[in-house]
Amino acid sequence: MKKFDKFVVNALGRKVPTIVNGKEMVPFMGVGKHRPTGHKAAAPIVSAADFPADGNKTLPDLKAALVKAGLKDGMTISTHHHFRNGDVLAVQIFDIAKELGVKDLVWFPSASFPCQEPLIKYLEDGTIHHIEGSMNGALGRFASYGKMAGLGVLRSHGGRYQSVQDGEVHIDIAVIAAPTADAFGNATGDRGPAACGLLGFALADSQYADKVIVATDNLVPFPCIPWQIQGNNVDYVVVVDQVGIPEKIVSGTTEITRSPDRLFIAELTAQFCEEAGLIYDGFSFQAGAGGTSLSIGVYFAEILKEKGWKAAFARGGSNKYLVEMLEQGLTKFILDGQTFDLEGVRSMRENWNHVNTSPFTSYNYHGKGFFGSFVDIVILGATEVDINFNANVVTHSDGLLLHGIGGWQNTLFGKCTILPIPLFRDRIPVILDEVTTITGPGELIDVIVTERGIAINPKRTDLLEKVKGSNLPIKTIEELQAEAEAICGKPKKAKVDENEPIAVIKWVDGTIIDTVWRVEPN
Amino acid sequence: MKKFDKFVVNALGRKVPTIVNGKEMVPFMGVGKHRPTGHKAAAPIVSAADFPADGNKTLPDLKAALVKAGLKDGMTISTHHHFRNGDVLAVQIFDIAKELGVKDLVWFPSASFPCQEPLIKYLEDGTIHHIEGSMNGALGRFASYGKMAGLGVLRSHGGRYQSVQDGEVHIDIAVIAAPTADAFGNATGDRGPAACGLLGFALADSQYADKVIVATDNLVPFPCIPWQIQGNNVDYVVVVDQVGIPEKIVSGTTEITRSPDRLFIAELTAQFCEEAGLIYDGFSFQAGAGGTSLSIGVYFAEILKEKGWKAAFARGGSNKYLVEMLEQGLTKFILDGQTFDLEGVRSMRENWNHVNTSPFTSYNYHGKGFFGSFVDIVILGATEVDINFNANVVTHSDGLLLHGIGGWQNTLFGKCTILPIPLFRDRIPVILDEVTTITGPGELIDVIVTERGIAINPKRTDLLEKVKGSNLPIKTIEELQAEAEAICGKPKKAKVDENEPIAVIKWVDGTIIDTVWRVEPN
Repeated sequence: MKKFDKFVVNALGRKVPTIVNGKEMVPFMGVGKHRPTGHKAAAPIVSAADFPADGNKTLPDLKAALVKAGLKDGMTISTHHHFRNGDVLAVQIFDIAKELGVKDLVWFPSASFPCQEPLIKYLEDGTIHHIEGSMNGALGRFASYGKMAGLGVLRSHGGRYQSVQDGEVHIDIAVIAAPTADAFGNATGDRGPAACGLLGFALADSQYADKVIVATDNLVPFPCIPWQIQGNNVDYVVVVDQVGIPEKIVSGTTEITRSPDRLFIAELTAQFCEEAGLIYDGFSFQAGAGGTSLSIGVYFAEILKEKGWKAAFARGGSNKYLVEMLEQGLTKFILDGQTFDLEGVRSMRENWNHVNTSPFTSYNYHGKGFFGSFVDIVILGATEVDINFNANVVTHSDGLLLHGIGGWQNTLFGKCTILPIPLFRDRIPVILDEVTTITGPGELIDVIVTERGIAINPKRTDLLEKVKGSNLPIKTIEELQAEAEAICGKPKKAKVDENEPIAVIKWVDGTIIDTVWRVEPN
Repeated sequence: MKKFDKFVVNALGRKVPTIVNGKEMVPFMGVGKHRPTGHKAAAPIVSAADFPADGNKTLPDLKAALVKAGLKDGMTISTHHHFRNGDVLAVQIFDIAKELGVKDLVWFPSASFPCQEPLIKYLEDGTIHHIEGSMNGALGRFASYGKMAGLGVLRSHGGRYQSVQDGEVHIDIAVIAAPTADAFGNATGDRGPAACGLLGFALADSQYADKVIVATDNLVPFPCIPWQIQGNNVDYVVVVDQVGIPEKIVSGTTEITRSPDRLFIAELTAQFCEEAGLIYDGFSFQAGAGGTSLSIGVYFAEILKEKGWKAAFARGGSNKYLVEMLEQGLTKFILDGQTFDLEGVRSMRENWNHVNTSPFTSYNYHGKGFFGSFVDIVILGATEVDINFNANVVTHSDGLLLHGIGGWQNTLFGKCTILPIPLFRDRIPVILDEVTTITGPGELIDVIVTERGIAINPKRTDLLEKVKGSNLPIKTIEELQAEAEAICGKPKKAKVDENEPIAVIKWVDGTIIDTVWRVEPN
């Protein structure tokens, strides 16, 4: 199997391989340009005659289930990340694989977290061939130095659904960690000792994998309602001591920012949205989990309250601030992709209008539309932006692959995408001539808000028109770049080997938008 | 296309065609004997780039949507029957097809009702080639006299899901009547002026059809929650004046019986269940909609109340009696496949534990199990039973095809299936040497309860053992048959032409369990 082969230059001028881990790839062709053909993938047809008539699919433990599922060399094993840094199953799965002497597995998580650092030893000893999914922190560093046998393949949440649906990735065995489940395999994330909210990231896995294992530490009598994951797609159920560490489900920033600079950026962003007429009775928004984003959400809530308006829906990552808006009637719905704190979990359990969504519903680009495309205001982060508004969320300026894509690419399709970012971090300018890795094309990024001014994408003449004559500090992106460089100097390009890819970044349609290169160790 | 070809004798000794409407068929091989191979069907991969970014999929009317969906000769058009006898769309669809001059369509309803009698003219003029689905009353009579161009294909609700999932039936265009929907196509049945409860019968259609049209008379702002049907599967949305006639959603018997004979049968059935130990704290049951079944449910409720027990779940067809049980805490859940009255609709909207299910969840035999197989007590009807416990629900003793299968075949997999039936109807005995049409194999039918005694299937030695020594009137089925014949005489066989099939009856695994033959008009 060729790790990579022959490079071509894609529509954004980036050098990308045409073969990745033995599979042919399509280079990025422009937003909406690649049209898929053929039919969706489909799981094998099975007969209920081969499943227990009494509905009891339990097996003694995870090892028994993996063996029964036929775990063998070269298989693709999927997990989900709703437990975030409190996941315990991924490492157990590969401990078992190692014990059984199984090799060359592909790990296909919906995201990875620092708690999975112990998997490095299995990447080293050949138990795991490569990771298809985000590689944060230690795993990313390991891959960045060229130590992974295969190439990493990073996808957005929607892209992950798309790849499974389209048959680009075939999951042999899916392991679904479920805070509550019944013996038939129906499962929910919204209750139980390790409640994490929802299980939407595992939906594709449950629908398309050959074998599906549900692990739970809270087995309830049939029926487990809600059945976020349907037992009719599940082969085996195992009861484990602990399915995830609930305290660690909460990760990332969960409080609004107190930094004056960031608060200023937040206020400026909210002011921009108001003056550009983006906030109205019945608007919708998505603000992320960071301190700045949370603050912007709070400003939105204040504007709604003042005007006597209601949002049609807020897209979550839910948190206590969004839940407060819901329970105060400031938004009619929360459409939630993952709960970021325990208030989010509670609300999802208690409020009918706090809705459990999945990447299929929210983000799948190869569906008949997805609601991410009609969210009015989308607040996002970025590690770097370039003067063409292309943005990076996966690598740092030193070239190291340290973050996953999450839903970031998918949300770019919203009606107005805004990146509230500082002009520089650690004296390194954030606006560059060229970003280290293009994760999202500039044509989809509308506004950059910094502490020294706001740059609007010249393509958005409508927005430029709307804020004309306002007292907002509107500048060109080149002006913002020049201000940063006047203070910090011109930033250096990352020292990477542009003949040695270590990972590729998929666009939402399965094409390759950019390549991540090997970093020379210092 | 050959309407039918070559007959073989299946595992139940019934003569069945090997070709139906040009497609090869598999004869029934015995319960659980036919093992499917291959992969499920899959819809074409599409791109969100081809759908409106603002999520607005509305078109002016049903005709515009059918034209845009590419309606043409020979296509298969599906509809659902949650409006029961209040459906208005099916006739409109074929009125439009006729207007457009489209021919040879296959109508694939989840069930048909008397209100669709106007379709006979389209069966006559070639607009519709044949019906794959139940044919009740006038449509059944029309088919029975050999007047339909193609052969009818009758499937259970679960079999319909299975056939779509397995690719036996490819739906070109699905039209989903939705009491409430948004412009993106998310739809629900539990609210709106024509609320009918749920839309589970349309689930397969939404997932597998090439083109999906949602019609509604209650368009709400996005998001329509619950989204029983997901807009991500929907192509077009049309607003119509009236999507269904709500008063006619309620059909069939909705009150407990007052007939002394039937009340006696109901009481005897409940007594049998109690003495055989089938009712316990945490048991589950399904009782149908007829007056006798409703009465049995009321007896079950009384037993639970008296003992201080709770059912784990009641399988509906929901109605006011089940809702009362739910709201009094006598059952933890209602798992509902279709609401039979407006109390059912209200409860589904208001009670989180009144759960909307689909044939995928409840009945699909080609899934990883289905919950129908572990319902403790299943109460069913039949037009005829034979001394081998085979039963008929589709034809009458005169050979006329007058009923659909519904979920009847699927529920036979329950732990104890009981048919409470009168010993004769209109002086025609119900227990025969051979039923006119085998709809369900005797090995899955456990108990026959009549006003003159109870026959237990000799295979169920466990049940025979349990009621030994009780004062229940246990008899053999031959004894019951003899009693009926002593009163009414030996019944005559239907006058049918056993070389001229007019329809086939599919088993839950897609094989053919029996043939319906042409009836000579009197």
